[in-house]
Amino acid sequence: MLKGLLSVLLVLVALSSTMGKPDKAAVKKEKRVPQTLSRGWGDQLIWAQTYEEALFWARSKNRPLMVIFHLEDCPHSQSLKKVFAEDQDIQKLADEEFVILNLVYETTDKHLSPDGQYVPRILFVDPSMTVRADITGRYANRLYAYEPSDIKLLLSNMQRAMKFLKTEL
Amino acid sequence: MLKGLLSVLLVLVALSSTMGKPDKAAVKKEKRVPQTLSRGWGDQLIWAQTYEEALFWARSKNRPLMVIFHLEDCPHSQSLKKVFAEDQDIQKLADEEFVILNLVYETTDKHLSPDGQYVPRILFVDPSMTVRADITGRYANRLYAYEPSDIKLLLSNMQRAMKFLKTEL
Repeated sequence: MLKGLLSVLLVLVALSSTMGKPDKAAVKKEKRVPQTLSRGWGDQLIWAQTYEEALFWARSKNRPLMVIFHLEDCPHSQSLKKVFAEDQDIQKLADEEFVILNLVYETTDKHLSPDGQYVPRILFVDPSMTVRADITGRYANRLYAYEPSDIKLLLSNMQRAMKFLKTEL
Repeated sequence: MLKGLLSVLLVLVALSSTMGKPDKAAVKKEKRVPQTLSRGWGDQLIWAQTYEEALFWARSKNRPLMVIFHLEDCPHSQSLKKVFAEDQDIQKLADEEFVILNLVYETTDKHLSPDGQYVPRILFVDPSMTVRADITGRYANRLYAYEPSDIKLLLSNMQRAMKFLKTEL
């Protein structure tokens, strides 16, 4: 209850400061919306923060890992994100069967960029920590790119990723 | 508007499902609060997601990086987090002068655990990417640990971290 009141107060403070003449100090005082790990790819999903964390979860839960590379100012990333977040089949499968990670910065692991560091790009990783370079989209020059119209192909690729590779581990 | 209605509906669904006899299916239907990058260490601060991202920002903004290792189920981490989030001097300095990152999983970089992988543990990194192993707390057996009562020492260490090392880069 107190928390609720505080939030309302803070919003009012933020509103009143934006209604005044905007200057640098006022902008700084505005209440920021806390950043989420989902970044809009599915607020109801549990996201890993880092690749190390995601690999740990994939191993311990024996689930495939889906890594989404994207950028906030890339229109292709934004349009893919929209259909990804709205597709109930994808969201359900991601929630129930995958470990998921979305990154706006590249990792140091070159296995996650088999044909370059473009965005949007989606890679699957086996719980045995093998990057599934065999699971690709439909573009020969950017094998791991997906357009919004490829969303069902992505769903089908998620189902493929659930059939684990037989490894020697 | 539609989004607002949907949220209300979802909350109602979540409420009604929690009021019934709890079972596994009902728990799954509850609306989750999206995870934040701050994890309670300062919702109004801009947090980096990964160490790679944090290093990129530190270099490009020429700011020192503060890395906080902690765990959600560690009482020492929780009590330090509380004073950290409530200390206005720390929050202001972190906001204005630092790149900040909080992690619940270790990175693969051994430089971030000079004397082990305990929590809570706070390391500073120079924009030249040198880990400031010289900036320590008051415990000889855990050089980078801080208790809640050490919060002003942490503030003073943040001020020290702002005086960059002279490196040959």
